[in-house]
Amino acid sequence: MSQVYLITGASTGFGALAARAIAKRGHTVFAGMYSHSGNTKEYEDAISKYAKEHKVDLRAVPLDLLSQDSVDAAVNSVVGSTGRIDAVVHNAGHMSWGPAESFSAKQLLQLYDINVVGCQRLNQAALPHMRKARSGHLIWICSSSTYGGKSPMIGPYFAAKAAQDSLAQCYAHELSLWGIESTLVSPGVFTKGTDHFKDAANPAYPDIAAEYEAGPTKGLSEDTMSGTASLPPPDADPSMVADALAELSDIPRGKKPFRICVDPVGDGGDAAALVVDNNKVNFYRRMGLDRLLKVQL
Amino acid sequence: MSQVYLITGASTGFGALAARAIAKRGHTVFAGMYSHSGNTKEYEDAISKYAKEHKVDLRAVPLDLLSQDSVDAAVNSVVGSTGRIDAVVHNAGHMSWGPAESFSAKQLLQLYDINVVGCQRLNQAALPHMRKARSGHLIWICSSSTYGGKSPMIGPYFAAKAAQDSLAQCYAHELSLWGIESTLVSPGVFTKGTDHFKDAANPAYPDIAAEYEAGPTKGLSEDTMSGTASLPPPDADPSMVADALAELSDIPRGKKPFRICVDPVGDGGDAAALVVDNNKVNFYRRMGLDRLLKVQL
Repeated sequence: MSQVYLITGASTGFGALAARAIAKRGHTVFAGMYSHSGNTKEYEDAISKYAKEHKVDLRAVPLDLLSQDSVDAAVNSVVGSTGRIDAVVHNAGHMSWGPAESFSAKQLLQLYDINVVGCQRLNQAALPHMRKARSGHLIWICSSSTYGGKSPMIGPYFAAKAAQDSLAQCYAHELSLWGIESTLVSPGVFTKGTDHFKDAANPAYPDIAAEYEAGPTKGLSEDTMSGTASLPPPDADPSMVADALAELSDIPRGKKPFRICVDPVGDGGDAAALVVDNNKVNFYRRMGLDRLLKVQL
Repeated sequence: MSQVYLITGASTGFGALAARAIAKRGHTVFAGMYSHSGNTKEYEDAISKYAKEHKVDLRAVPLDLLSQDSVDAAVNSVVGSTGRIDAVVHNAGHMSWGPAESFSAKQLLQLYDINVVGCQRLNQAALPHMRKARSGHLIWICSSSTYGGKSPMIGPYFAAKAAQDSLAQCYAHELSLWGIESTLVSPGVFTKGTDHFKDAANPAYPDIAAEYEAGPTKGLSEDTMSGTASLPPPDADPSMVADALAELSDIPRGKKPFRICVDPVGDGGDAAALVVDNNKVNFYRRMGLDRLLKVQL
């Protein structure tokens, strides 16, 4: 059955590809548009063109996750024109690059704001509709780094992504009896085909970053960048994540997987996540909360 | 050799016990004092009394991790009176209790601020001294929940603790060549002997919490509380964590463990953390960054 999706960060990268791939499966997709420059016209035009050419129901919607007003307006636009919101894809993210010590307190809060609190704002706008409908699907684009491949230089971003994974797990079980399913998608390293590395936040304290570069960690930034880029095989492509999301859209309600790992590098995050997720399931059982482990249809 | 410690959140709980236990091993300990009420006199008096009675070098120092000025003043006080700062224990934390959806965006940021960004502020004050000395020890009091036992109702706090664990890992390897060691301590569930549950942040949106209580998740808060309290055995005591920290203080430089799990419940977090930490080590090797895996003595 055709579903109504809202995808955040759909101007570029995984989000842009997933919006098209899910729309092609016959779903109605609202592609959340945001640009650091403030100008999203190019992305909106591309969306319109794709929708016309492929005769799919793909629509651009302005979406700034740092503004509750913007988030509320986007959800109201979805529900106002379709009468429902069936699935939310928490895809938008913002990376960082530099020694952890060289980022200001304010920057850590900003990275948390966009990567985690943005999901919270959108949940608060979308979940009342889903809870009322006793149906819905939250899809969280997490990061393989949380349980698998971590590198230096990406500390504040990886920290936020680990938090997002944890928050997603909590929401999943608090929402299951409301009939709302959750899927955590953990992409591995993709250094091509997204603006993720290009757009990364730079240290507010370049003098501290310079001390790292002049000290025993000389060359670390460059070595980490080249080491990271050497990991994905030549055929690693962000469309792998979009395809996984499109396949997920076809899986019937009640059968959606709890976690999907899409990792061209094979960093072991999939195996570790299995252990972590299993520990959590056992903990729920020991607490006598087994009833939260399965979505209520 | 006697070391100079600064411990955050040492008014109560793990921090208060650890400050005493480490001072008893012959180290100089600055116990960071903070109270939600603003009044720490009772805790400072207890510290003075303990120091006199046991003839140990244990000193109270005001420390509000939300204020860079306060953090800088605390570190300046330590370095000013002893000439050094050898070890920092990132222990201060603030919990939350309620459905994830019932916490405001602002509350998520506040919980991140105290649990994670507070560590960042203190690192920025302490690390320049440690990097200059090419020596030091960062001890992070994390949470077993990150890889082991998660429950509902604690989402925003567990999210922040997962982020802290991730950030600690990044710092550990960025600092190893500077001669600075790191230890992540993951305590399991302790429901007695700390103010952790009593002081937890409550939802800014009680109307949403009430909807959860009136809906299919009726009784969840109470069931989670009683289920959690049923897990720790009768002899589970926060002094287990303080004792582990005291033992850690005796381990020679270069031999400090990367992670210690102190979990009376046995939630599997120790095994999962081993897999996660090992994935990260393998990832560093594959990136050609093996040199960051061992502290430079």
